[in-house]
Amino acid sequence: MNDTIDLLKSHRSIRKFKDQALPDGLLAEILGAGQSAATSSFLQGATVIRVSKPESRAQLAAFAGNQPYVEKAAEFLVFCADVRRAGNCCVKYEKAFAGDYTEHFIIATVDAALMAQNTVVAAEAAGLGICYIGGLRNNPRQVSDLLQLPTGVYPVFGLCLGYPDQDPEVKPRLPLSVIVKEEVYDDSQDAAEIDAYDDRIREYYRMRTGGGHGVCWSEQVATLLSEKSRPHMRGFLAEQGFGMK
Amino acid sequence: MNDTIDLLKSHRSIRKFKDQALPDGLLAEILGAGQSAATSSFLQGATVIRVSKPESRAQLAAFAGNQPYVEKAAEFLVFCADVRRAGNCCVKYEKAFAGDYTEHFIIATVDAALMAQNTVVAAEAAGLGICYIGGLRNNPRQVSDLLQLPTGVYPVFGLCLGYPDQDPEVKPRLPLSVIVKEEVYDDSQDAAEIDAYDDRIREYYRMRTGGGHGVCWSEQVATLLSEKSRPHMRGFLAEQGFGMK
Repeated sequence: MNDTIDLLKSHRSIRKFKDQALPDGLLAEILGAGQSAATSSFLQGATVIRVSKPESRAQLAAFAGNQPYVEKAAEFLVFCADVRRAGNCCVKYEKAFAGDYTEHFIIATVDAALMAQNTVVAAEAAGLGICYIGGLRNNPRQVSDLLQLPTGVYPVFGLCLGYPDQDPEVKPRLPLSVIVKEEVYDDSQDAAEIDAYDDRIREYYRMRTGGGHGVCWSEQVATLLSEKSRPHMRGFLAEQGFGMK
Repeated sequence: MNDTIDLLKSHRSIRKFKDQALPDGLLAEILGAGQSAATSSFLQGATVIRVSKPESRAQLAAFAGNQPYVEKAAEFLVFCADVRRAGNCCVKYEKAFAGDYTEHFIIATVDAALMAQNTVVAAEAAGLGICYIGGLRNNPRQVSDLLQLPTGVYPVFGLCLGYPDQDPEVKPRLPLSVIVKEEVYDDSQDAAEIDAYDDRIREYYRMRTGGGHGVCWSEQVATLLSEKSRPHMRGFLAEQGFGMK
């Protein structure tokens, strides 16, 4: 249909990278493209920390649950939601800061996500591979201390970037009819489609691992939503100034 | 540098659309590309409601604070964060649902944002213009009732899509040096760059409005962060099953 759409549809996470740096200027080009994404209420509420020091990378890899590609990728970026920068403007205009509503948390988090996804598309268009690292939220306090994140800033996720040294298959997604609904939310017809999709995912894992753990999408997400998930996040966010009022 | 990167850098919101439908198949193509974005923990936690009925569009336009392009765009999509679909899988595997942690809220919200931004890139690659509609969060209860969103699903934002009937300038973003930091968060050198940027934004508004309201970025965001911002969101989200534990 279109080169860009083909590019988007060929996305898969890369977890093995060549030992090859980006050429001069490419990272700034990619991040500039990232920054061109829309921003809620013109907040520009994303801040990116580029981490290059090997000792910092090693610590982040450990904080994320021992993900070695955090150390080995050519570039590692931490995308943060940031209401501090705008909060400083309150001081400038002698207004009292009230940026601790749930809404502020949403707009800054969405801003970080939109900028990150544009960065990803730009990176992939330039021949790079990427992997999001949500695992930074395993230890957000340690990550924040290492990166000296002040009040009003939190690490949403990390992003590995580099030249791919593997060529994994695209992971199948749920059928579009399950994801996109007409006029109203109606999932009454989804069960059979999800069952068929589960079979595809079992097959995908079987192909990829040469044996397969037999787990399907439904079972994976059932586990995800039946366990406490990073229960420290609420307290951590409050400490960082995201009061969720 | 690259057609896709040029495309990303040329983004601007479109608020005036031609009265022209999308050709058959294009919306599915765009949404399929959107769905190819990464998804946290493989949750696939985004659901999109496509709203076509004129009376529903008129209501959504009003809920969003009287934004007429919500009615007039060829397509209007509501991107929702969804833990219900995965929650149903807990039932299937006889696990108790515990998907009401802040972390679940983050992963589903980020999933919706990543899918939306990929959808936007695909749409713009196909010659369409877009406008995000965060204003749906002005009246999230009314929006959710209209779209019959069940517990575990909330509307993050809307998205207008259509053929542009205007050609606005790209809105300048903060200097990359303000947004991207090396190794640690350090904004001690940003004030002068932000002042210079504020001058650019004043000029941008002056050019665009042929007179200009004289407001700059700093002043806009100072106002945003000094006022209560959608204080109903917290209670609304709790009602929708996002307990923020």
